[in-house]
This record gives sequence, structure tokens and C-alpha cells, in this order.
Amino acid sequence: MARRTVIDLERVIAGDRIAMARAITAIESDAPDSDSLLRALFRRTGRAYRIGVTGPPGAGKSTITGKLAAHYRRQELNVGIIAVDPTSPFTGGALLGDRVRMTDVELDSGVFIRSMASRGSLGGLSKKATEAADILDAAGMQIVLLETVGVGQSELDIAGAADTTVVVLVPESGDSIQAMKAGLMEIADVFVLNKSDREGADQAVTAIQLILNFRSIDGWVPQVLQTVASEGKGVTELAEAVMKHRRFLEGHGALEERRIARMRRHITELVADRMREDFWTDERRRLLADRLEELMRRETNPYEIAEELIAHFHGQG
Amino acid sequence: MARRTVIDLERVIAGDRIAMARAITAIESDAPDSDSLLRALFRRTGRAYRIGVTGPPGAGKSTITGKLAAHYRRQELNVGIIAVDPTSPFTGGALLGDRVRMTDVELDSGVFIRSMASRGSLGGLSKKATEAADILDAAGMQIVLLETVGVGQSELDIAGAADTTVVVLVPESGDSIQAMKAGLMEIADVFVLNKSDREGADQAVTAIQLILNFRSIDGWVPQVLQTVASEGKGVTELAEAVMKHRRFLEGHGALEERRIARMRRHITELVADRMREDFWTDERRRLLADRLEELMRRETNPYEIAEELIAHFHGQG
Repeated sequence: MARRTVIDLERVIAGDRIAMARAITAIESDAPDSDSLLRALFRRTGRAYRIGVTGPPGAGKSTITGKLAAHYRRQELNVGIIAVDPTSPFTGGALLGDRVRMTDVELDSGVFIRSMASRGSLGGLSKKATEAADILDAAGMQIVLLETVGVGQSELDIAGAADTTVVVLVPESGDSIQAMKAGLMEIADVFVLNKSDREGADQAVTAIQLILNFRSIDGWVPQVLQTVASEGKGVTELAEAVMKHRRFLEGHGALEERRIARMRRHITELVADRMREDFWTDERRRLLADRLEELMRRETNPYEIAEELIAHFHGQG
Repeated sequence: MARRTVIDLERVIAGDRIAMARAITAIESDAPDSDSLLRALFRRTGRAYRIGVTGPPGAGKSTITGKLAAHYRRQELNVGIIAVDPTSPFTGGALLGDRVRMTDVELDSGVFIRSMASRGSLGGLSKKATEAADILDAAGMQIVLLETVGVGQSELDIAGAADTTVVVLVPESGDSIQAMKAGLMEIADVFVLNKSDREGADQAVTAIQLILNFRSIDGWVPQVLQTVASEGKGVTELAEAVMKHRRFLEGHGALEERRIARMRRHITELVADRMREDFWTDERRRLLADRLEELMRRETNPYEIAEELIAHFHGQG
């Protein structure tokens, strides 16, 4: 690593912002000390309530997230926000725009905001977002908001790792159908039709409710709310719907179930990561490179090569 | 398996549609005989030219794909289409709509069309799409079109597995910025601004070209074309741009490089799949379940559990 990261565990637990920011940077960059940090912090986790906010691009997720944060701040809760931004590896950084709208919240010292960029690959990002949420949790944030664009499976995984998942849609025609196609309908505990002062809002709500008729998750029928988040309309009702879902989960033992499922996924990802690292040694990389030439001449096939590599791994085992 | 799949290798190679359809179904459902089939077919692959078509929902990808197919059919080439549809696990099937528009092509016996649905998880779908393309390739299709919604990393991987990748956008404001955020700009060899009879088309082309000023891939500067695919406008130019890119790749040895990279990815996925299967035995699943209870009491942490599981795997090695 070019930069040495010094992370003070006690300062993270005390909610020191610089220490929290450094800890998340360490996770993001796979720094050598991130592993021991997460290990040590883990027993401090489990107190924050995690709210996922997702939806198609342009639905107003950042605005909703910011307004929710401000709402919980008024209840004197500490709020942390992880905003996952699909990033262009080509521009080299997350695009601004979305983040700018959140500045009014950022100025409040009770809110910690952090963007995490995907840097061209979402592989491992849902794991990293969970770990960043763990850090905010251990640092005493009572509410952690996970905001992400709901456009693909990895992004859905991030939002799905929350205790309550809010899906934000807009009245535009076909939006709810697209959302359904993208798998958003399945992960929603609360629906928000934002920009509901626009034409088509009522029809969109009806469409969502029609789709929802087919579904209830463990006895919870997802709520459908309307907001005009830019004007603050409907935000209080949204925050209340989230807390209603929280009470529902807590009352049915379902919160623990969700959290166990989240940890099972996290461990599965840790195992897969470690196994991949152990597998792809320089030696096996070279073996693969050699075989690729034979493969292009059609003297072997991908299945034979995979088997040979695995046999090699076990031989070394 | 509830249904016995009998796949005749020779019939697939002869281009028999029923045999091809069965072979793809076998891959999709991880049927026991799909592995031996793919092994046997592999040496027949490498002749088809693979064209990825991707872009945001509603951009007109299916129409473009259908028109391209019709164009290549007029040149008396055999054309295969793999359309990857994000599917709702909740509705249980791919949504129609998109597919309907392709019927004029479907009626032509020279075109083989197959939808592959993600059934709620895109994990492994890019591998399966590559394998389905291998089957069409072995069956003598000279052109294989891979159509997918460009909304997430897994979906990009599918389109990126092509020899030439076409990204379809529409003039709507902000679309090109969203495309850039979603990583579409990086994988495009050819850009199509579809529905370019709509307002804002010229500005959108300018925006795309501005972004492209920062980029050329191995000496190829992506082309930007305008189409009104529903009326057939610009399709010939698009088909020619694809072939121009093909000649460019072939002239610079870059086609072989791309294909080697694709096969490296495929083998890496085969290895990861196999390793995951080998790892998650009933015994280790039980071990994880036991530890999850301790984890909820914060008596251990996910990192310790992952290590214990890996140690157990190597002990069994």
C-alpha cells in the first residue's frame, strides 16, 4: 500500500469521524489491517437499525435518504449513510450530482455520510457495504441508511442486506414493470412513489398495489406511500412506515431471522473470497495461461482445464 | 430431474432446432448431461461471430437485435439470438412484451431465438449465456447475438463476453450520464442512439462523443450511430459498423486476445462453481448453522467462522 492506514479501534467505537472514515477506506481498499479491525469491532455490532433505499436511476433515492436522515436526526438518533455509487472505471471516480443534494444533511454533525464506489466491478461490493455498515453500527450509529441504485443483482444484494428495504419509484409509465423485471418488487418492505405530484401517480400506485396482491412476505404486506421528497412531503409517513415494519419484524422474531440470513451470506462471501485467493497462486495462473494456447487450438476444452487446475490445488492441499 | 433430457450431439452439430433447444435447457437447469455435452461440442466452436447488444430498459434493444438478425439473414448467414431477461422470481417467468416484437424474425427458419431468464439471481448467468452461445456456435450459427439489459455488473459481463458490443441508448435527458454510471460506456465498441427522431438526439450524440474523447480501446474509437430501429432506419449502417469493428479486431490480432480473455473468465467461473460445490457439503453447512447461533450472541465473529470452515475443508482435503 502506498499510504499507511492507522486505525484506532477505540476511536472508531467512540464515534470519531476521522477514525470511522479511515476504517471504511481500509475496507474499501482491502488494507491488511481491515480484517483485524472488523474482527475486533464485530461484538459491538447489532444495535443499529439498517434501512436499505434503492430504486432506478433518477427516482430520487438520495433526496429520500437525506430527508429520512434529517427525520431521524430530529429524534436525536445518530445516523450513518452508506451511498453505493456505480462508478465508471474510465472517469476514475464516482459522479457527483447525486451527492450534492445531500449537503444540508452533511452539515449536521450527527450524520456520517460515506460514498462507496464500485470502481468498475460490483464483485465484493455488497460484502464491503455490509462491513462498512458494521463499522457505523459499532461506532454507535443507531440508524444506518444503505443507498444504492437498484439496477442489478449485486446492487439488490446491498439493499437486501438491510433490516427494512425501501424501494423508490416514480410515476413514469412502465417504471413499475421495469422495477418488477429488475427484481425490485421482491425485496421491498416499503414502496415509495416519489415525485407523486407528477402525472400518472395514482395509476402507478394502483399498478404497484395490483402486483403486491400476489405477495406478502412472512405476513407483512408491503406498504405503498407517496412522497414529493424534494418538498419534504410524505417523509414523516415514510419514516413511520419503516418503524412500523421494524416493530412487525421484532414482534415476530423475524428481525433475528433476517440478520442470521445476512450473516450467513457474509460468511459465504468471506469463504469464497479466501478460497479464490488461495486458489489463484502464480503457479496456477501460469498453468492456466499455458493451457489457454492449447485451448485456442481446440486441443483441450475449458472443462478439462478447470478439472486439471482443481486437481493441482488438491495435490498441493 | 423430473424430466429426462436426451441430447443428441450429432443433431446439435447438424443445427437441429429441437436438439439445440434441449441442449440450452440442459445448461439452464444444470442437467447432469450438460457438462459432457459442452465438453464434446467445444472443439466445434470458434467460428461464430458474437455480437452483444445492451443498454438501459426501453432503449429498443430487442428491436435492434431483431433488425440486425434480419440484416444478416439477407446475407444468408445463420443467426442465433440469446436474449437474457431479468426475471421476477415472484411472477415465476420472464415478462413478455420485449419478446413479442421479435416475431417477424422468429418466423424465419434461419434464425434461432432463445430467451434465458435469470430466475431471481444472475449468479452464473453470464457463464450460462456463454455456454449457450457455444452451443449455437457449434450448431453452425455464423452470427450469435447476445441481448441483455445493461443494468448491472452481471448483465454487463454477458454483453462483454461478445466479440463486438453494441450499446443502445435513447435521446432522453441524462441517459448517457446514467449509461456511463452503469459502466456501459466502457464496454461499447459501437454506440447506437436509437429513437433518434425524438427531441434531443443531436445533443445526446454530442454528449456521447464528448465522453468518448477520453477513450479509445486498443486504437479503436467507438463509433456513434443514429437509428430509428422500429422503421429500419440506420440498421444497415449499424451492421456495417459492427463488421468494420470485426475487421479491425481481426487485423490487429485483437479478436484472438478478446477470445482468450473470455475463455479465461469462463474457466475461472467453472473453477469457482466447482470449488463452491465441493466446499458446501452438508457437514460444513451444519457447522455454519451451529456457529450462527454463537455469532448472534456475539461469542464469535464471521471472520473466525470463515477460517474454521476453511480449516475444516483442508482437513478433509
